[in-house]
Amino acid sequence: MLWDQVIWTKRESELRTSQGQSHGTEEQTQTSPITACVLGHPKQTTSGGEDMRNCSVTPPFLPVTAVNTTVRLKDFRQHMETKGLDAYIIPDTDAHMSEYIAEHDERRRWISGFSGSAGNAVVSKMKAALWTDSRYWIQAERQMDCNWELHKEVGTLPMATWILAEIPAGGQIGFDPFLFSIDTWKSLDLHLQGSNRSLVAITDNLVDQVWGTERPSLPSQPIYYLQENFTGSTWQEKVTEIRNQMQTHSNAPTAVLLSALDETAWLFNLRSNDIPYNPFFYSYTLLTNSSIRLFVNASRLSSDVLQYLSSDCTGPMCVQIEDYGRIQESIQKYSVEDVRVWIGTEYTTYGLYGVIPQEKLVEDSYSPVMVAKSVKNRKEQDLLRAAHVRDAVAMIRYLVWLEENVPQGTVDEFSGAEQVNKFRGEEEFSSGPSFETISASGLNAALAHYSPTKEIHRTLSQDEMYLLDSGGQYWDGTTDITRTVHWGIPSSFQKEAYTRVLMGNIDLCRLVFPSSTSGRVVEAFARRALWEAGLNYGHGTGHGIGNFLSVHEWPVGFQSNNIAMAKGMFTSIAYPLHDPTGLSLPPEPGYYQDGEFGIRIEDVALVVEAQTKYGGSYLAFEVVSLVPYSRNLINTTLLLPEQLEYLNQYYKTIRQKIGPELQQRNLKQEYEWLLKNTEPLIDNSSWVRLPASLTILVATTLALALGQSL
Amino acid sequence: MLWDQVIWTKRESELRTSQGQSHGTEEQTQTSPITACVLGHPKQTTSGGEDMRNCSVTPPFLPVTAVNTTVRLKDFRQHMETKGLDAYIIPDTDAHMSEYIAEHDERRRWISGFSGSAGNAVVSKMKAALWTDSRYWIQAERQMDCNWELHKEVGTLPMATWILAEIPAGGQIGFDPFLFSIDTWKSLDLHLQGSNRSLVAITDNLVDQVWGTERPSLPSQPIYYLQENFTGSTWQEKVTEIRNQMQTHSNAPTAVLLSALDETAWLFNLRSNDIPYNPFFYSYTLLTNSSIRLFVNASRLSSDVLQYLSSDCTGPMCVQIEDYGRIQESIQKYSVEDVRVWIGTEYTTYGLYGVIPQEKLVEDSYSPVMVAKSVKNRKEQDLLRAAHVRDAVAMIRYLVWLEENVPQGTVDEFSGAEQVNKFRGEEEFSSGPSFETISASGLNAALAHYSPTKEIHRTLSQDEMYLLDSGGQYWDGTTDITRTVHWGIPSSFQKEAYTRVLMGNIDLCRLVFPSSTSGRVVEAFARRALWEAGLNYGHGTGHGIGNFLSVHEWPVGFQSNNIAMAKGMFTSIAYPLHDPTGLSLPPEPGYYQDGEFGIRIEDVALVVEAQTKYGGSYLAFEVVSLVPYSRNLINTTLLLPEQLEYLNQYYKTIRQKIGPELQQRNLKQEYEWLLKNTEPLIDNSSWVRLPASLTILVATTLALALGQSL
Repeated sequence: MLWDQVIWTKRESELRTSQGQSHGTEEQTQTSPITACVLGHPKQTTSGGEDMRNCSVTPPFLPVTAVNTTVRLKDFRQHMETKGLDAYIIPDTDAHMSEYIAEHDERRRWISGFSGSAGNAVVSKMKAALWTDSRYWIQAERQMDCNWELHKEVGTLPMATWILAEIPAGGQIGFDPFLFSIDTWKSLDLHLQGSNRSLVAITDNLVDQVWGTERPSLPSQPIYYLQENFTGSTWQEKVTEIRNQMQTHSNAPTAVLLSALDETAWLFNLRSNDIPYNPFFYSYTLLTNSSIRLFVNASRLSSDVLQYLSSDCTGPMCVQIEDYGRIQESIQKYSVEDVRVWIGTEYTTYGLYGVIPQEKLVEDSYSPVMVAKSVKNRKEQDLLRAAHVRDAVAMIRYLVWLEENVPQGTVDEFSGAEQVNKFRGEEEFSSGPSFETISASGLNAALAHYSPTKEIHRTLSQDEMYLLDSGGQYWDGTTDITRTVHWGIPSSFQKEAYTRVLMGNIDLCRLVFPSSTSGRVVEAFARRALWEAGLNYGHGTGHGIGNFLSVHEWPVGFQSNNIAMAKGMFTSIAYPLHDPTGLSLPPEPGYYQDGEFGIRIEDVALVVEAQTKYGGSYLAFEVVSLVPYSRNLINTTLLLPEQLEYLNQYYKTIRQKIGPELQQRNLKQEYEWLLKNTEPLIDNSSWVRLPASLTILVATTLALALGQSL
Repeated sequence: MLWDQVIWTKRESELRTSQGQSHGTEEQTQTSPITACVLGHPKQTTSGGEDMRNCSVTPPFLPVTAVNTTVRLKDFRQHMETKGLDAYIIPDTDAHMSEYIAEHDERRRWISGFSGSAGNAVVSKMKAALWTDSRYWIQAERQMDCNWELHKEVGTLPMATWILAEIPAGGQIGFDPFLFSIDTWKSLDLHLQGSNRSLVAITDNLVDQVWGTERPSLPSQPIYYLQENFTGSTWQEKVTEIRNQMQTHSNAPTAVLLSALDETAWLFNLRSNDIPYNPFFYSYTLLTNSSIRLFVNASRLSSDVLQYLSSDCTGPMCVQIEDYGRIQESIQKYSVEDVRVWIGTEYTTYGLYGVIPQEKLVEDSYSPVMVAKSVKNRKEQDLLRAAHVRDAVAMIRYLVWLEENVPQGTVDEFSGAEQVNKFRGEEEFSSGPSFETISASGLNAALAHYSPTKEIHRTLSQDEMYLLDSGGQYWDGTTDITRTVHWGIPSSFQKEAYTRVLMGNIDLCRLVFPSSTSGRVVEAFARRALWEAGLNYGHGTGHGIGNFLSVHEWPVGFQSNNIAMAKGMFTSIAYPLHDPTGLSLPPEPGYYQDGEFGIRIEDVALVVEAQTKYGGSYLAFEVVSLVPYSRNLINTTLLLPEQLEYLNQYYKTIRQKIGPELQQRNLKQEYEWLLKNTEPLIDNSSWVRLPASLTILVATTLALALGQSL
């Protein structure tokens, strides 16, 4: 799946701010992948309709989908007054800077009615305002009542500007320090500096107080540990590795603080399901050189798990269980001693950062656990490979099923999504989808993050392209794959666009690059073939992925704040081309406003050592997603010989690895489909590389042949 | 020419600091082009010899090239004591952050004896230390006496670390604020913060006081204006354009301050020759919305020039001449009013920055003049193109001359350099070389910035490769081109390395990319073909270039702090491969230590609009350097059909543009050479693209032919 905007809107302001500080020139490079991600969204039609609010008429028109927020805002403002606040900021994240959040944390949704995954709100004494990006403008107009202003911008600057205009000097702006990243806080604080308006950290979340008993409770399902055959190392080995890093670190940290939920899940090989699509549980870890402190709801740990964690002792290899809610207090207490706490600033909240004295902080963008987790060892690599083999079987079953059923007109986007989820669910070790399935037909595929609902969806048709971006959670690995298909006769433009997207995929997948190269340095190889024809896409090009963890696993990827590529990392390589008519083509009447189709090809690849002719330390990608591309969408005459060669080699690998799996399960139809769809492709107007000795002979023959054909 | 280390060592620390602030991950991406530039230098043998000092024996051994600094250091320390200083920092630049400096400004050279272009010095009460990069370590050991420590690092951090170790708490460290960039000052200040050691700005330079009458005087040759046929716009038009930018700027600056020497030279179309290879003159400009103030030595302006500048009035389009030395005082005075001064932080010194109150500053990385200068208008483009045509004639004359004379053993690196300079000098509008000619044979070419001397040079031979990186200053444009040649039988590795360097050149030159793309995003296209074989180079990939201005013209290029590409910019595209044996190949005894050869191909290209199939705003490069590559070094079987096609098209352009020029001048031998060297290249083991209708026929023929040949 594409790197979601959620994480972008959370980080985008910080990114802009920090880059602005380092180089003024960043402003002049607006088409760099970072900002393009925000800028490049396909336009949505903003023409009003019966399903959207209209606050400019009297009385205001509200669709049935709008949520009445009058009462809750009134209650909320009373609480604000009690605290002496002039405004209060309600962000869209949780205390772990999670990409997906539990219902328990959907404060912004509850107070505003708006359910989109990205968007921050501010409530002042008289006004209520929401900032969100273009994906969500229509949705916001459908869900919010007229108590709310919609601002079509993202980042801290527009919000700060609004606050400066709305809140009089001397004003106090409240916020929950556990819902603010360090950088968001710094950025807002900077914008308000010298304005005589101050940010006030309120530890008791104000929304929660008003939400009261209606608020979904904290998830409380059991936390379990993974069997040894699904883990790369024991938690003891991981703890030892991180402690070794602490010892060799030049600033000699005495402890590592883990805030992101997948950090703790990874370290202890523990899982639960607090967050949709993510097998995590609410937790923190303070790993010191002499103790291991896991902050979690202890009642969720069975005696078996407690034993697994050696929780009955206090030695350096015993896990002491402490209450989840006591993290701030404990960190504060620990920081009194002569200690140094190593944190990853990208995932630590201001709430924890603020209680550690500056001189006791060892700051990196990412914690050592985050970085260690990104490099999969041999066993973890094998586990992820195995998950992708089964995932390919599910995908192929679905593609065969579509070929049979779409022509009958019985499949829609929603039932299709259900079907692929069902096929995945039938695979061994399955643990549900790894994100909400993006199943989009025709123009819906032009919306990058479209997901169908039971109520609103489009019927799949032989006359339209169909995009499926989906993935699974398995005990051995997380998957993510996108294929775009067409069951009828695609237009030549659709074929060209698809082929150029594929060429980008191939060019990046077959690249050899020096060790420690950053993804951003090589990202343009995915775009060259599109650029050549005047096409482009407005998103990033890939993201890390976990072993039964996040489908978007930081800090691996192709963007400015991703770390350098290293052997053992897994990254998705996605080549989206959304709404090419809307994004890049000259406006043609009736053709520009609405999207026509969307194309995306996405595979997961492992970073491996490359053997080059002259040696040296080089890397390459090994694609582990093993599902054929759409033959009828490939214009082979556009492919270079090397690209064709790569493609046929990839097909050979698919046959070798998936063929036996299908045969073994007696999936005959699927096996035949596989053979048909992995037949070597031949360029009809072939490039032929002739051995030197034959050049003249063939040249002569050609001349003769051409003579004859004219 | 390659972007020189001089500018790198000046900026490297700032870059690191600012990037470190924005993203901790930068440290993990050490092979990105930025740092690679510093890291990637070929190893020099450091084994001692009779020509290097040995301070560990008694008495120390000093070569004849060592400069005795005992007396000057003693005098210098007395001055330090008078000022109450514990140490004093002596950087390698001038008050305009120039890449090349006049003898008048070679303070670091005078105090230390070390004449290399990059290296900073600190003198304390007891010690004297120099920091320089690997290019200069041997040279420093030859030129410095035992009063000096050599530190093999660059940037502000090692220097600050040394200061903290050497200077006791409470110590005062003096520096000349006019020789410090804003960022260097900030960086050093940050490193020393909280250490109870303070930086003290001393306006009277301490070295100058000791240097006394021995110091070369300020250049004083006449300043002249360019004839209209050599300028793109009049100075009045340029002033109007910049004032328009001031008016539309959101911070409404009332003035622009120009510190870099080429900014003032460009704005007024004035030139002189204060700096080697650069037709600049010591100056500043303060352009306000109602006045134009040029700070310069007035005695250098003839009445003709004064009239040209309308210097006899004080209106908004009259240039008021003020004394060069009064800039600080004038800025300070101006800043008392209700004004806002727009500066480019990269080229403004702390000396001027420090006198403008923070709230009156409008800061960008580059001044609007720097940015405007980088985009050449139609006329400037034509002027630069014309200069490149004449430059190609000089280059071809030299290549023909080499072919004749090298086999006779009569050419050495130094006489070769003199010869190419002579040929350039014979071209119309010539104004000398644009940098010190790099003329390097055999292993010397493996040293990126090698230049031969009258005393030390290598004889050119048919058995070795030869690299020439040179350029000219012409009244209509500045040129820069690199060609690598071999007159005998190159090894297959030499051919492969050369061909892969060329493939990188071609891949970048034929790239189509969206408007406003940053160079750093596409830089890797120049490296792909090398990476593929396990080869790489440790330098940047190109730099801007001026119209009779700098050969390295900021802020255009392919590095992190370059601005986005725009139509009308000129950039060099250089593909160096230095010392591949030392850099990238596995160690082989006796082969690894010393370089064998160096390859570089460098052309200047204009950024133009690209016409794509589906429209949109796209850019491409038009190469304006028009000299054929070395046919005997190209392995055509490595080239892709598209690369070959590009190459042959380039050769066609050379014939069209340079052929008539040679004929017109009756340069018959050169014309024949041109024809021979621009013959279309054919791949001996050709890729042939067959029309679809013929595929089967040819496949059959091929099968038959193959059958016959087996």
